[in-house]
Amino acid sequence: MMVNTVRFALVVVGVFGWSMMLPSATQVGLSDKVLVFPYETDFSFVSLIPQKEMGLRAFTLCMRVATELPEDRQIILFAYRTADYDELNVWRESDGRVSFYMSGDGIFFHLPPITTFRTSLCLTWDSRTGLSAFWVDGKRSTYQVYKPGHSIRPKGSILLGQDADKHLGGLEAGQSFVGEMADLNMWDFVLSRSMIQAWHYGHRVPKGNVFDWGTMEYELNGNVMVVDDD
Amino acid sequence: MMVNTVRFALVVVGVFGWSMMLPSATQVGLSDKVLVFPYETDFSFVSLIPQKEMGLRAFTLCMRVATELPEDRQIILFAYRTADYDELNVWRESDGRVSFYMSGDGIFFHLPPITTFRTSLCLTWDSRTGLSAFWVDGKRSTYQVYKPGHSIRPKGSILLGQDADKHLGGLEAGQSFVGEMADLNMWDFVLSRSMIQAWHYGHRVPKGNVFDWGTMEYELNGNVMVVDDD
Amino acid sequence: MMVNTVRFALVVVGVFGWSMMLPSATQVGLSDKVLVFPYETDFSFVSLIPQKEMGLRAFTLCMRVATELPEDRQIILFAYRTADYDELNVWRESDGRVSFYMSGDGIFFHLPPITTFRTSLCLTWDSRTGLSAFWVDGKRSTYQVYKPGHSIRPKGSILLGQDADKHLGGLEAGQSFVGEMADLNMWDFVLSRSMIQAWHYGHRVPKGNVFDWGTMEYELNGNVMVVDDD
Repeated sequence: MMVNTVRFALVVVGVFGWSMMLPSATQVGLSDKVLVFPYETDFSFVSLIPQKEMGLRAFTLCMRVATELPEDRQIILFAYRTADYDELNVWRESDGRVSFYMSGDGIFFHLPPITTFRTSLCLTWDSRTGLSAFWVDGKRSTYQVYKPGHSIRPKGSILLGQDADKHLGGLEAGQSFVGEMADLNMWDFVLSRSMIQAWHYGHRVPKGNVFDWGTMEYELNGNVMVVDDD
Repeated sequence: MMVNTVRFALVVVGVFGWSMMLPSATQVGLSDKVLVFPYETDFSFVSLIPQKEMGLRAFTLCMRVATELPEDRQIILFAYRTADYDELNVWRESDGRVSFYMSGDGIFFHLPPITTFRTSLCLTWDSRTGLSAFWVDGKRSTYQVYKPGHSIRPKGSILLGQDADKHLGGLEAGQSFVGEMADLNMWDFVLSRSMIQAWHYGHRVPKGNVFDWGTMEYELNGNVMVVDDD
Repeated sequence: MMVNTVRFALVVVGVFGWSMMLPSATQVGLSDKVLVFPYETDFSFVSLIPQKEMGLRAFTLCMRVATELPEDRQIILFAYRTADYDELNVWRESDGRVSFYMSGDGIFFHLPPITTFRTSLCLTWDSRTGLSAFWVDGKRSTYQVYKPGHSIRPKGSILLGQDADKHLGGLEAGQSFVGEMADLNMWDFVLSRSMIQAWHYGHRVPKGNVFDWGTMEYELNGNVMVVDDD
C-alpha cells in the first residue's frame, strides 16, 4: 500500500511557495507554513520525528486545525503508535466530541465544533494526577481524570492525517484528516494557562521540546501540500 | 425573454437617491450605493462590464451581501458565463453550503449562514496551485484544491441576480437573488490576508482591476434598485 | 370586556418603585422605567397617546424588548389600529420571523431571536421608496420594498401588550405580550444609521416627535407594572 502511493504523489519542489514531495524525504522546519490535506485518501499523511523520545509522563500538545469535513465524520487529529498500542490518539468523533486515547479506552469532551475557520486546540495530561483537559482558543475544558500513573511508551511513530491500525500500516480513508494543520507543538510537561493563551495569540512561549513547528523534522507522504501561511 | 422584461421595468430616474432603469442603459459608478433586488423574479438582474477581459488564471472576488431568503433556497451570488460554459459561478446551495464552480463540478464550503445582516464574502483562487478559499468577514475558510492549471475563458457575460442557463437566457426565479449586494470588487490576483481584512473593514485597498465598485460599468434590468448605502 | 378588567387590576401605587394602576388614568413620562407584563392575559395592555397625529408617510419606531415566551408563540409587539384597519402592527410570528403589517398583507424578516436578554429593535419605513428594514442592536436587516405610496391613517388607538381585532376590543391571550418593554420612541421620519446606533447605545438622539419615552402619555390597563429600569 505504501509503495503504491508513489504513483499518486506529484513531484513538485519549491515552486512558488508550495510543494508536494516523494515520500520518505525528511525535511526540516515549518515556520509560517501550513499543511494542507486536500482530499480524502488512505495514503496521504505526514510522519513527524520527535526531538526526544516519546516516553512521557506528562505533556502539552497544541495545534491549529481547520476542516470542511461533515460534523458526523470521524477524524484523526494526532496518532502516536508503538508496535502493539495506540499510545496517544486524538480524534474528533462522529458524534462531534473530541477524544483522547492512551492504549485502551479514551475520554470524551464536548468542545465547540471544529470548523472551516482555524481552531487552536491544546491537550494537557499529567500522569501524577491524571488531570486532562482540552484548551480551545485558550479556554480550558472541564478537567477529566484519566489514567493516573500511566506512562506513554517510547520508540513508536507519529502520524498526522491518518491513523495506523498497526505499526505503519492499515490506513482508512474514512478516518483521514482533510483540511489544514499548523503550528503543532508538544512539550513534555503541562503548560500553564497563561502560556497556553500566549501560544493561542501567537505570542512568544518556550519552544516545544518534543515538537517545535519551526524546526520540525517531517516526511510528507501522498498528497499533502506545504503552503505559506497567510 | 429579454425583451419582455421591459414590460416590468419601472422608469424612475434619480428620484431622491434611488432609481430603477430601463434595461441596457449603461451606467457608471456605484460608490456608496447598494443594489437592492426586492422581489423574486426571473427577469431582474444587473450586467457588469469588466475593466479587462476575464481570461483569468487567478482572482479575488469580494462583495457584501445580505438576504432574507430561506436557508434551504438555492441562491446565485455571481454568474460569469461564456457561450458553452459557466465560467465562474458562486452559489449559496439549498443545503446552506457556499459553492464555487468553474465549467463543471464545483467545490463546497461550510460557512456561517448568509443572513439579513450584511456578510462580507471574498473568494480566492490561483490556477498555479489550485488553492481556493472563501473569506467571511475577513476570516479564511479551509483551503480546497480546485482545478490547478485551469484558465477562465474571456468574452462572456457577468450577471448579478440571475444565473443564465445559456448565454444571456434561461433565467429561473427559483435561483434568483433577493436582497442586497454592495461593494463588489474583483482583482486578477490573490489578495493577501491583510488586504482582505482591510477591505472587510472598509479601509483603503488597491482598487479592483477587473471590477471596482466605485467606477463599475453596469446595466440594470427588470426590478433592481440603486439605493444610497447607509 | 373592558369593564371586566377592573376586577383584576390591583391598586398599588408607588410601593418600592413599582405600581399597577386602575385603567384609564392617563399618566405622563417613563424615563428610566420599564413596562413589565408579568402574565399571559387577554386584558393587560398599555394605551399610548401620540404627541402628533399618526397620519404618517414615513417613520422610525424603536423599542427595547425582552421576553421568556417560547419561540413558536405569536407575540404582538406594537399595534396601531383605526376603525377598519390594522394600520401598523409589529409581530413576532410563530415561526420566529418578525413581521410588519400596514392594512393588509405584511412583510417578514429573519432576525436573531428575541430572547430573555433585552433586544433593541427599530423599524423604518418610507412611503416614497417603500424601503423598510428592521434594526437589531443597531444592525440593519436587508431592505424590503413595502407599499410605496401608502399613507398610515390618523386617529386610531395604539396598544402595547395586546392586539385589538376591532377598534378597542377583541383581545386574545395567545397573542399577548409577556415580558418587558422599554424606551419606545417614534419619529415621523427615517433616522440615519448613525442615529439608530446612537439610540441603541443610549447616546443622545433627537427626541421622538410621535412618541418620546421620557414624556410619554399612557394608560395602564389590567396587570402591567411600571418598574425602575436597572
